[in-house]
Amino acid sequence: MDPLVIFTPSGKRGRFPAGTPVLTAARQLGVDLDSVCGGRGICSKCQITPGSGEFPKHGVTVAAQALSKFNNVEQRYDRVRGLKKGRRLGCQARVQSDVVIDVPPESQVHKQVVRKAAAERDIKMDPATRLFYVEVQEPDMHDPSGDLERLKTALAEQWQIETRSLRADLPVLAKLQPALRKGKWAVTVALHRGHADLHERILDIWPGYLETRLYGLAIDLGSTTIAAHLTDLGNGSVAASAGVMNPQIRFGEDLMSRVSYAMMNPGGDAEMTTAVREALNGLTADIAAEAGIDAAQIVEAVFVCNPVMHHLLLGLDPVELGQAPFALATSDALSLNARQLGLNAMSASARAYVLPCIAGHVGADCAAVALSEEPQKSQDLVLIVDVGTNAEILLGDKTRVLACSSPTGPAFEGAQISAGQRAAPGAIERVEIDPATKEPRFKVIGSDLWSCDPGFAEATAVTGITGICGSGIIEAVAEMRIAGLLDASGRIGSAKDTGTARAVPQGRTHAYILHDGTANGSPRIAVTQGDIRAIQLAKSALYAGARLLMDELGTDHVDRVVLTGAFGANISPKHAMILGMIPDCPLDKVTSAGNAAGTGARIALCSRTARAGIERVVNEIHKVETAIEPRFQEHFIAANAIPHATAPFKELRKVVDLPSPDFSTGAGADSGGRRRRRRG
Amino acid sequence: MDPLVIFTPSGKRGRFPAGTPVLTAARQLGVDLDSVCGGRGICSKCQITPGSGEFPKHGVTVAAQALSKFNNVEQRYDRVRGLKKGRRLGCQARVQSDVVIDVPPESQVHKQVVRKAAAERDIKMDPATRLFYVEVQEPDMHDPSGDLERLKTALAEQWQIETRSLRADLPVLAKLQPALRKGKWAVTVALHRGHADLHERILDIWPGYLETRLYGLAIDLGSTTIAAHLTDLGNGSVAASAGVMNPQIRFGEDLMSRVSYAMMNPGGDAEMTTAVREALNGLTADIAAEAGIDAAQIVEAVFVCNPVMHHLLLGLDPVELGQAPFALATSDALSLNARQLGLNAMSASARAYVLPCIAGHVGADCAAVALSEEPQKSQDLVLIVDVGTNAEILLGDKTRVLACSSPTGPAFEGAQISAGQRAAPGAIERVEIDPATKEPRFKVIGSDLWSCDPGFAEATAVTGITGICGSGIIEAVAEMRIAGLLDASGRIGSAKDTGTARAVPQGRTHAYILHDGTANGSPRIAVTQGDIRAIQLAKSALYAGARLLMDELGTDHVDRVVLTGAFGANISPKHAMILGMIPDCPLDKVTSAGNAAGTGARIALCSRTARAGIERVVNEIHKVETAIEPRFQEHFIAANAIPHATAPFKELRKVVDLPSPDFSTGAGADSGGRRRRRRG
Repeated sequence: MDPLVIFTPSGKRGRFPAGTPVLTAARQLGVDLDSVCGGRGICSKCQITPGSGEFPKHGVTVAAQALSKFNNVEQRYDRVRGLKKGRRLGCQARVQSDVVIDVPPESQVHKQVVRKAAAERDIKMDPATRLFYVEVQEPDMHDPSGDLERLKTALAEQWQIETRSLRADLPVLAKLQPALRKGKWAVTVALHRGHADLHERILDIWPGYLETRLYGLAIDLGSTTIAAHLTDLGNGSVAASAGVMNPQIRFGEDLMSRVSYAMMNPGGDAEMTTAVREALNGLTADIAAEAGIDAAQIVEAVFVCNPVMHHLLLGLDPVELGQAPFALATSDALSLNARQLGLNAMSASARAYVLPCIAGHVGADCAAVALSEEPQKSQDLVLIVDVGTNAEILLGDKTRVLACSSPTGPAFEGAQISAGQRAAPGAIERVEIDPATKEPRFKVIGSDLWSCDPGFAEATAVTGITGICGSGIIEAVAEMRIAGLLDASGRIGSAKDTGTARAVPQGRTHAYILHDGTANGSPRIAVTQGDIRAIQLAKSALYAGARLLMDELGTDHVDRVVLTGAFGANISPKHAMILGMIPDCPLDKVTSAGNAAGTGARIALCSRTARAGIERVVNEIHKVETAIEPRFQEHFIAANAIPHATAPFKELRKVVDLPSPDFSTGAGADSGGRRRRRRG
Repeated sequence: MDPLVIFTPSGKRGRFPAGTPVLTAARQLGVDLDSVCGGRGICSKCQITPGSGEFPKHGVTVAAQALSKFNNVEQRYDRVRGLKKGRRLGCQARVQSDVVIDVPPESQVHKQVVRKAAAERDIKMDPATRLFYVEVQEPDMHDPSGDLERLKTALAEQWQIETRSLRADLPVLAKLQPALRKGKWAVTVALHRGHADLHERILDIWPGYLETRLYGLAIDLGSTTIAAHLTDLGNGSVAASAGVMNPQIRFGEDLMSRVSYAMMNPGGDAEMTTAVREALNGLTADIAAEAGIDAAQIVEAVFVCNPVMHHLLLGLDPVELGQAPFALATSDALSLNARQLGLNAMSASARAYVLPCIAGHVGADCAAVALSEEPQKSQDLVLIVDVGTNAEILLGDKTRVLACSSPTGPAFEGAQISAGQRAAPGAIERVEIDPATKEPRFKVIGSDLWSCDPGFAEATAVTGITGICGSGIIEAVAEMRIAGLLDASGRIGSAKDTGTARAVPQGRTHAYILHDGTANGSPRIAVTQGDIRAIQLAKSALYAGARLLMDELGTDHVDRVVLTGAFGANISPKHAMILGMIPDCPLDKVTSAGNAAGTGARIALCSRTARAGIERVVNEIHKVETAIEPRFQEHFIAANAIPHATAPFKELRKVVDLPSPDFSTGAGADSGGRRRRRRG
């Protein structure tokens, strides 16, 4: 009987004639064993580890010489590049007798990419672009055929690739002839086939065997910031991350002001398109430089973004998104040449994939959050909030998922806040206020010390204390409320009302001094009445959106809350709940998923299966339009107060025995002030 | 029983309930009845003619009221646009009782396009691009979907088009939203699907019902000239034709000098690519202006060209074509965005189709000749010669077809001829020389008169007599030979040798004065010894190519000869045979096919079936490489003399009782002259 070959971890097994290369056996059994060179002993991707001795589980005994001896190719490879102890090249080692062969993770094509430890969810590598080494027939003038046609024949014969409708753009075709001759009729080609593509496409070509890696960019294109992860398409690892401000900010800070700009200025949409594409090119060059790779190795880009960014990226006029019925030009996922998007800094034939939009107000970024967080698979009712200039909200479980977006404005990102700034070193990110003394303590980004700790001044000497970021303002406002510096309507009490000199008059209202650095030339950082109003508007919008989805689902509670987004990831769940940003829920059921949209983009970059999956899911998500829903306005108005009796607030109030102040008649109250003037 | 409906000319028949619109019945029976608006009474493409009375052949009697009465839509159409007597709109007229309905040619989608009366060959319209009118669902924000997705649904429902993988480039997508709104949710779309495409593609979109026509450009891209036919994609008619010089001439007159330029000058190939693409853009604009259409109505371009032009058009370095084994970068047909070829003057999403190349020296132009002339279907052995700077030669019949190309040089196009010029008004195109008096008479392009006819001076006053074109020089040389002004080796005799003062000394050789216009400031047009040598080289190359194919086929005769190409179409078969350009063959079996390559391009433009067909045929054509074939050189040298006993020459010589001069020892002979000098 032929020797029995058993592969682990797959457990696949079969009998093969003695002398069969391990790679051949693996291929015939459909075992996931990588190879770029097709078994020529060049690429070393097919490394395996043979077992030896007794394998009672498999019922075999593996002899010492179950595989052929180390041959010349393996010896040379070991000498030149080093082969781990016990490893063999699967294309060289031949089966002699019964054997158990382990395929280590790094030799698997569809290797597991651990995405996040917390959720214990894995993504299998299934990228759209892969490398293939092929040896091509030399031209024969007595049987003339084109170089491309002979390359196709080689790909079909050596890799069983269906090449009848294989495509190659002209810039790639122009590389083919010199590559074949320089590589002595052997080339490495990068082939791309998207999950919905009907054909393979040659993305790039190099002479001989290419010792390189291919990369993709996962891009989270936000209204305010653009974040990119440079991802290795071989193993899914992130080689570098970088971010830049979205230069479209100069045309309008929030989405609707950009839509207005496009509406009021002929060619304004094209201006914004050019601006964002230039920023993307700069970002591409920067991130490649940071990782020390050639930007031409970047062969794919995946985009997640809200619908307005989506249209402006694609060069589509966003005006329809500014008015009911908020019709998208296209909602389905898009797969296209990156050059069509003006992305000139990466490979000339790079491909771009844009995730599908859910609705005119719920974009591809929300689809990416769904791809990352999978509400459609949740056993309990989960509320997922992606906090940004616009908040995307998903609510649901495995039976049904709803989505909406809510115009929170840029306050959560530190904009429209008097001392607001981006989350960067020097920004106040954590705040606590003593309810008895009304004295604050805080932390700034870049130091782990509280402001009251010894050594804080030294630790922050370099960065300074420059402002307050989104998570810092949330905590400051919530803490002010807990400490009795704010009443339920959001008014800041005067020094007399609150008993602290930190409450200072500012026009007809008051502000609370968090930190005064003016003595040594730094700014004075205060929370003003205007800041409170901005946060109130933002949190009411967020809360109203969540409530609207809960109404639609006919529920008044959620089992758990997931906060995502650059800001959502850093927010304190307790403070968010005290402010009334999110519905009441046990605090330990509020978690952060980090930048879920960015994670979703990375998943889509690594896995065609995930792309196909999210396209199906998006079609099934039920969209709720907040903009024209009267109940949204009702919820919005009702949510303006701080708080509406959230559990942590009630608990904290009990602990610190808080007064329930009402500053509406006080000298410093804003609306009260106006009332008095009218009377006088 | 339901009424019987019989369509002519197809003969298709079926029974339909009374009240069924004729268009519906036609569709269900698969009758070829055009409609762009889908039966909405807008496009008027579905006009039909109902019969009346007895139809014994079909066994039916058609009542006067077999179709419903003229309805409002038809009345309005007739009032506004006029409906031919007896015609009905197929979408409006409903079946009442048994009826025979004729579909006139102009209402057929796949209408017959008569190509050329002589060959009685028809091409059926089957263009890759067609117009469809659709009514699209308005957006509903409670069931959000993109405008593109709703358009797809409409196309699928109203036209049964498979839209799952339908593509739209971004510039088209950008037009969609305004078009839908301007057209009140109705649009006309141009859909493209090539014969090898796996999906439909939206090429363009217009609001409402578009009253327009789509055009394609059939482009014969020659080394010396670029000719284009603007073709109506609805009915195959040529709306305009235009040509320009290929600006690459400044980099080298023939193919090999252009390859050398690319080889010697880094970036030289890109320079030539830019030059030809700019010329194509100018030509596109000009031809659109000439036809009075918007260049954006041009949605397709088909290219036929030799391999070097092919590579330079595509932006591929042609150096491999300059050396054995003459490997093409790609030989298969190409279908791509016209923008990839830098064709910016036509529709932004126009498609380009490049016919397949046969071999490194036998290009897409030769494939186009095969598409037009169909040697693979010939009952007898046909030799097809496409005469240009390079001659493409096809030899074969329905059993086997061979192809080669021969480097004839530009002499046949009037270049490298002392008084040579392009075939344009003022050029001498016909020549006769009286064997007795040695006096010439000639015709110039632009006039039907011979130079000896009364009124000739007046008729040519405007154009003047400016030079001699390719067909003119052929006739001049042949006539000189017949008249005894040339000997068999090609030497021009002196005045003393020939007895005419028109034979004048020129350096050490002689020239024959065809026309002397110097008295009134016009040029003196002579045939010089250098001209004779250039023509001898060109015709020897052509003949040697044909002989090589005959050797390969093991035959020493051909049944018929077809001359094609701008020059080939105008050449006199008799003179060509006297010169020994083509193998001996009965004169009445030598025909001209006009510009067969251009015709092939037009056929490919009108018919996807033809594209698929020629791709198959090209794969089966056997290629013979002349450049490295010793027998080619042998044939070339042997063919240098004029003539090698061709039938018409022998006949003419008998008639005019010609002497058989030998000027090799005469004072004016060139090699003889050199010999004398050496001796002296």
